[in-house]
Amino acid sequence: VDRNRFAAMHCSIARTAGVVGDPWTLLVLRDLFLGINRYEELRRDLGIATNMLADRLDRLVSDGLVERRRYEQRPPRDEFLLTARGRDLFTVALTVMAWGDRHEAPDGPPMRLRHDGCGHPATPRVTCDHCGGELRLDNVTVLPGPGGRDAPGTTVVAERLLRRGPGHPADEQWSP
Amino acid sequence: VDRNRFAAMHCSIARTAGVVGDPWTLLVLRDLFLGINRYEELRRDLGIATNMLADRLDRLVSDGLVERRRYEQRPPRDEFLLTARGRDLFTVALTVMAWGDRHEAPDGPPMRLRHDGCGHPATPRVTCDHCGGELRLDNVTVLPGPGGRDAPGTTVVAERLLRRGPGHPADEQWSP
Repeated sequence: VDRNRFAAMHCSIARTAGVVGDPWTLLVLRDLFLGINRYEELRRDLGIATNMLADRLDRLVSDGLVERRRYEQRPPRDEFLLTARGRDLFTVALTVMAWGDRHEAPDGPPMRLRHDGCGHPATPRVTCDHCGGELRLDNVTVLPGPGGRDAPGTTVVAERLLRRGPGHPADEQWSP
Repeated sequence: VDRNRFAAMHCSIARTAGVVGDPWTLLVLRDLFLGINRYEELRRDLGIATNMLADRLDRLVSDGLVERRRYEQRPPRDEFLLTARGRDLFTVALTVMAWGDRHEAPDGPPMRLRHDGCGHPATPRVTCDHCGGELRLDNVTVLPGPGGRDAPGTTVVAERLLRRGPGHPADEQWSP
């Protein structure tokens, strides 16, 4: 597939999508997040063909999201444990789930979340680490970053930024 | 492909992944979020084959994420505008980008965000709508929801909940 192509793009969405931009991969990760770690349990829960499951797990291991551990020697049986890099994808799973709950769940959310920190049912929000306000398409401006040379879309972004002209007090933080 | 299969699962991750679980689809959405709306601009920015781009745009239209608008009659030229449903996927793009920035950006983030609400550079966080605390794998419990009959993974989730036994004051909110 095009994985190397996405990895080579100067874009964090492309690079991440090259790693997890596949429905079965997301579902394997979902089960790992839920604590379903053994090959046989994963196969049964997902109803996935064995070659597909083996392929997705191999890729998750080679991408460093998951570690394989043999928990039984005879017969040989493996389980799969998330690495720190893999666990950090939980935020992606949360927003993917939240969108589905809002737009594709006519009978209500199939699963619910409890935030153990406060003990209450939680609906995930994506917020600004500075002020805590919600980040939405209409209140976020995308700007070129340090790793963005030749980034797809960056030329357009830079042009739009220039068109906006001076004015926003925080813009100087973004000048090259 | 397996799209109908994912749509039929009682899982919001599966349903969403069936719609956007494809790298090119995510990159088309990225460009639409950036304001790149015209077919020719999309093709040029993405470096994507025309049949692939047409396929992804057709699916985005039929899934109700995007509307096609003819902005020029001779020669016929189309642009693509996000619907409310499509704009709401911005949160997914933000977490996908944030993961890539953390794990796949050795030269620094290719793009940066400014939260116009507060004017500061923003790193997206996924937080609890009740208390504002960060949601992570180690402080969230997943529980069966109303739309979860026969949900993949739900049996395991319910069993784990039962094993936890009584104890957490908020658990009564989750009893059937």
